[in-house]
Parts: sequence; structure tokens; C-alpha cells
Amino acid sequence: MAVTIEFNRQSKELIVSESESVSSLQNGHYGVMKKGIVYLFPEEALYLMDIRNAKCYDENGSELRFNDLSHFLYSRKLMARYFTYKDWRDRGLMVRGVDEARGGYGKSPIKKYPSGKFTPPKYSIEGLFFPDDLITIIDDEEVGRELYESYWLGQFGSYKAEQRGKLSKLDVYETLFMLKHCGLHPKNSTERRVKAYAKKSRPDLHYMYDVYEDWRLRGFILKTGFKFGTHFRVYFPKASPTKTGDEWVHSKHVIHVFPRSSRMLISEWARAIRVAHSVRKTFILAIPGAKRKAKAKLDFLLYHRKNGGVEVPGKDDPSFVMLSLSEEEQIGGAELAEAIEGAKKLGLDLILAISDRETSVTYYRVRRIELPGSKYEYYEIEWEQP
Amino acid sequence: MAVTIEFNRQSKELIVSESESVSSLQNGHYGVMKKGIVYLFPEEALYLMDIRNAKCYDENGSELRFNDLSHFLYSRKLMARYFTYKDWRDRGLMVRGVDEARGGYGKSPIKKYPSGKFTPPKYSIEGLFFPDDLITIIDDEEVGRELYESYWLGQFGSYKAEQRGKLSKLDVYETLFMLKHCGLHPKNSTERRVKAYAKKSRPDLHYMYDVYEDWRLRGFILKTGFKFGTHFRVYFPKASPTKTGDEWVHSKHVIHVFPRSSRMLISEWARAIRVAHSVRKTFILAIPGAKRKAKAKLDFLLYHRKNGGVEVPGKDDPSFVMLSLSEEEQIGGAELAEAIEGAKKLGLDLILAISDRETSVTYYRVRRIELPGSKYEYYEIEWEQP
Repeated sequence: MAVTIEFNRQSKELIVSESESVSSLQNGHYGVMKKGIVYLFPEEALYLMDIRNAKCYDENGSELRFNDLSHFLYSRKLMARYFTYKDWRDRGLMVRGVDEARGGYGKSPIKKYPSGKFTPPKYSIEGLFFPDDLITIIDDEEVGRELYESYWLGQFGSYKAEQRGKLSKLDVYETLFMLKHCGLHPKNSTERRVKAYAKKSRPDLHYMYDVYEDWRLRGFILKTGFKFGTHFRVYFPKASPTKTGDEWVHSKHVIHVFPRSSRMLISEWARAIRVAHSVRKTFILAIPGAKRKAKAKLDFLLYHRKNGGVEVPGKDDPSFVMLSLSEEEQIGGAELAEAIEGAKKLGLDLILAISDRETSVTYYRVRRIELPGSKYEYYEIEWEQP
Repeated sequence: MAVTIEFNRQSKELIVSESESVSSLQNGHYGVMKKGIVYLFPEEALYLMDIRNAKCYDENGSELRFNDLSHFLYSRKLMARYFTYKDWRDRGLMVRGVDEARGGYGKSPIKKYPSGKFTPPKYSIEGLFFPDDLITIIDDEEVGRELYESYWLGQFGSYKAEQRGKLSKLDVYETLFMLKHCGLHPKNSTERRVKAYAKKSRPDLHYMYDVYEDWRLRGFILKTGFKFGTHFRVYFPKASPTKTGDEWVHSKHVIHVFPRSSRMLISEWARAIRVAHSVRKTFILAIPGAKRKAKAKLDFLLYHRKNGGVEVPGKDDPSFVMLSLSEEEQIGGAELAEAIEGAKKLGLDLILAISDRETSVTYYRVRRIELPGSKYEYYEIEWEQP
């Protein structure tokens, strides 16, 4: 039998009082039970109407359709919330409002990355900086080769053919790093001027550089991630371009830099992750920049599968907390950092649920990383299929 | 024997006069021959020095290294030009300055797309528009189902499960299209207000909509390209969501909208193509917006392979014209459109050659498309491995 929902326009309460419906809703973990009556959350009522043929009436007995009720209940991002709620429910999994969270769940372990210490080599090197191309050429063959072979700084010779040519090419991050740490002296430029040029095409240059330096000084090798649609690809400490055959270690991680001060469309943000996923790299998100206030209301507690069944509200702890998003909205770095912080406080991993323009939902799970000694926060983002 | 290059600081000419070197350079199609002397282009001289051990001396007999010569020859984007020149040469293929082009090559055929005519259905439909989610819900089950099944407007029920639920969801482009053409009347909004809301997160909304409408009115079906990292995925005329099994036609094309007025980093631009490529979709670039002046100097004529060998300057026509770019520079829609226009005038397809931060070069070929009756220009962009 279809559930009947009573909606009170004054109090905006959604209640179900008919006894058969009440027990069916209780079994399905909908709403909150008080004195034999179930009080539903807006998304629950909409779901029951959309999927389970529930009928809704106001206090005068007039029937309300989905849009009538949505109009009365209107709140920010109601549909992003509704579609992501619906999708999780459609998978036979439970979902509850985040207000019920009691915290301390301890389900958000930190992944600790290895860390070495890199002592930059000291040289006195001349080079020529090309401001439009943001590249520095070192034409001292001996130094260029050593920088490449011993430290993987620059690209000596040709890409994947080091024996072809005798120049070393430093990208803009390597240029700045060597200006600061390794005694590089471009004969036509200075650190200040390199930065000024680079900011013309990349206003977020200093954040990019900060992340580059942070990983480099801990022994990681960072090279361009262009082929993987991202800012950097990462080799773990002790990687070398001169190792061949079985000794050669592929890059398995890429880093995308999303400063707190920046904003971008969810669709563009997800695009970067999608490329990394298609080439089977672990996607690491860096959120550099000073803390700033941002609103990020978490949306739902997600109950997942467990051995022999599904997690059940009241009995089991939730596995994740969800932020409901839609394809065409913008997200800020600060806002995302704030949501991650909120999840951390609850002891849960954050799930970003993105409802696209066809209401198909994609899930990304955010895992915390610790890079020992770093002042920045990094996260692995994984595509999750619940 | 290594070639000796003489550089004149006043005239900036690069000449080779020693007879053995002259004939070797002629065989390799380097430079321009005048009275037994070869005049080299800057990139050619740099290439010979970098790869073929050429020595360079100025008029006083002082040797110039790569950086010395680059410093004297400095011009905008010299390294982007040099690395892309080098890469094409390294493949055993010939490349010449674009100034030599005589045009009329007739190697830039237009690909004609099929085109139907779509007459939008006339209704009088109520809906509710959600400004944060940029979505319109139609809760009239009968109309929603018909819009979906007959015209693939909106998503009825659930994505890939139409029978689940009875609502129809229109994305913002479908909302605007139906407002204009199909008698949609959101009870809480108007065309002007929908546009105003959408522009908050998407300032380029009207260009997106123009492209959507352009293809829709010609019988194509456009749905979100979110899963493919792009703006729209495209179904050719007569596609229907109700066809199943063998009758079902997959989308094989995606559209990315890059307005003339917008600018973006080459790395971000390439990222969008990369996702499409990884899912084997044809990437279509739309460049809407009014024509505006832009500088786009084409860089090189590219000679490619032919039956039994390679195309040779002087004997064969070039196959492409190249625009040399680097990963960290920005490109504008107008600039790109201008370069395409320049290539079209020569009768060649444009090749975008992007040198990444490690000087590895990626090639994208631009093919012109004709969408009959459209006022806009569209291009297929293909990853090319020469």
C-alpha cells in the first residue's frame, strides 16, 4: 500500500501516521519516530513520492505533487541533495541527515607517504631563460647531464632519448627551484622576473611552485603531468631517469593543485580526475593557500555495505559523509577544504557526489594523506562505485 | 664532418659556405640556397648545433654556443618553435618556414555532417526551475515521458532506468530551449531569470546555449558530456533513448565550446581532448562568438610521409601547417580561430603542436566540419602521431 504523507504548511512538517505505513517506513530507515508518528526529511518525502508512489496532502486535504511540495520546501541545492540521496537509496543503501552525526567514528585513517630528505646540490650555473616559453636552457653539457642523471632536474637531450642533443631544459618550477636552492644564474633574468613572466599565463604560479618545492624537498621527483591532464606527475624517492628495464619505476601518482582562493566548475574539476583515472594514476589533490572562511554544509551520512548485508542506521556507524554537488555549479578550494575538515571532525572520509545534467551520480572519495613535515594538506581522490 | 655556421651580428644572417657542408644541407632540405651559399633559418641553425654538432662563429671568429645564439636571435616563442621544429625533424620528416607557402594546396577538405530539420513540438507545460541546481522538473508524467521518448528532451525516470520514477528533469540548455521553442512555463521563473542564474556559475552560458540550439535545430540530440569530460555528447539525427539492443546507437562525438572571447591554458585545453580520446569519441570544437581581431602567426609548413618515402620541399606540397605552442601558455578562442582561418587560406589542415615542460611534443590535427545551415564553425580535433 502506498504511503500517505501529511504536510503542514505552517510548521513544514512531513508526517506519516497510518500504522502500516509507519512500520514500513521504520523498516526502511526513513524519518524519525516520535509517539507512533514518523517525521520525514524533505528528501525522504520527495523520494517516497517519486519512487514509491506515496501521496502527499496538506492540512486542507489538497493533494500536493512533487513540484508543489518542492516549492514549499525550497532550500539551496535541494535537487542536488535530492538526486544524490535518491541515487544512494536506489542502490539499496541507507542514508540519513548529517545532523544525526554523533562523531568520533574513527573511519578516516591517514595514509602516510614515505619521505626522504633532499639536499639540493650547489652549483654555479649559467642558463638562458625564455620568458614566452617559460623554459631555461643550460648549454653546459656536463652540468646539464649531471643535473638530469643525479637529480632528474631538467630534461637532458631529448625526451625518452637522452643521447639525442646536449642541452638541458628546465621547466619554470625547476628554474625557480634551482634559482633558489642550486645556484642557477640565468644570464638574462632573476627570480623576481621569472615569477613575473610566469604569472602572466599562470596567476596561481606561487601555489604551483610551493607544492612543487614541498614534494621536491622531501625527495620526490615531480615532472610535468601534461600527458595525464594534470599539473605534475610524481616519482617516489630514489627514482631516477637512468634506471632501465626492471629497475625503472613508473610514476603512479599525479598532483593537481587547487588553491583555496580559486574557484572552478565542478565539471572542470572532475575532468582532471577523469584523465588520471583513465591512465590508472592515483590522483592527489593539493589545496595550498592560507585558511579562509568558507561555508560548506555537509549533506548526508552514508551507510555502506558490510559483510553479509548493509550497514543500518542506529545499529552500525555510517561509513562516509557526503557533500552533494551538481555538474554546473562552482566549487572553491576553501569550500572543499572546509568540507574535508568537517568530515575529518566526524572521523569519516568525505564522499563528493556529483549529480550531472541527466541526474546520473558520480562519487569521489577523499582520503587524507600525510606527507611528513609538510605544512600543506594533500588528499587522494578516488572514483568510487558504491 | 660537422657543419660550420657563420653568424653576422649586424644582419643576423646565418650562413654556411663550405662546399661539403652546403651540399649536405641541401640534401637535408635546410635553408635557402643563394649563389652557392646556404642561408639558414634560426631554428635550423639551432637544430644543427644541438643535434648535428654544428659549430657557430661570429664575424670576429668567436664561437657561439646555443644560448649565445638564441640570445641574439631572440624572438617571441623561439623555444616553442624550436622544440616543435626539432620534434618533426627528429621523425625524419621535413619542415620549412611558413613564409614559403604559395597556397592553394587543396589539402583541407571539409567534412560534411548529416543534417535533419527538427521542428520543436508545441506544448503548454508547467515546470519548476531550481536556480542553484540549474534544473527544471516536470511532474506531469505523461508529458515528461513523451518529451523523453519522442524527442529525448529531459531525463525521464532515472538515468538508464526510465521506469524508475515518474519525473522529467530538464537541464539548463533543455530548459532554455523549451522556454523558447516548446511552450515551457516554469511556474517560478522566466527565460531572463533562468539565464541570469545560470550565468552566475557559467558566464559563457549564452555561447553554450547557442551551440546547443544550433545542433538541436538540425536534428542532433545533445546531452551532457560530463562522463566524457566535455560539455555535450552528441547523437546523430534519428537517435532515440527508446531504441534498445542492436537498434541502440552510441554517441560517438562530443562537443567542447571554446568561445572566441575566452582564454585558457594550453594544458587545460588539451585535457579536454585527452578525455574524449581515452573514451574513443570524436572531439568537436565549437568556436562561437563574433569575429574579433587576433594575432596568430602560423609557424611551419610540415611535410609528411607519402607512398614509399617522405614528402620533399620543392617537389611535393606540404601536408599541414603548424602552430607551435607550449604547455604553460594561454590561448584565446579568437587566436585559435584566426590560425584555423590562416590554414584554410593555404588549403592545409592546421596542426597544433604542443611542447610540454619536458619538450615532448603532442600533435593535434584540426579538420573543418560543415554543419549545413549553421552560422558557426566547428572542427574535429584529432590526436595525431606523425
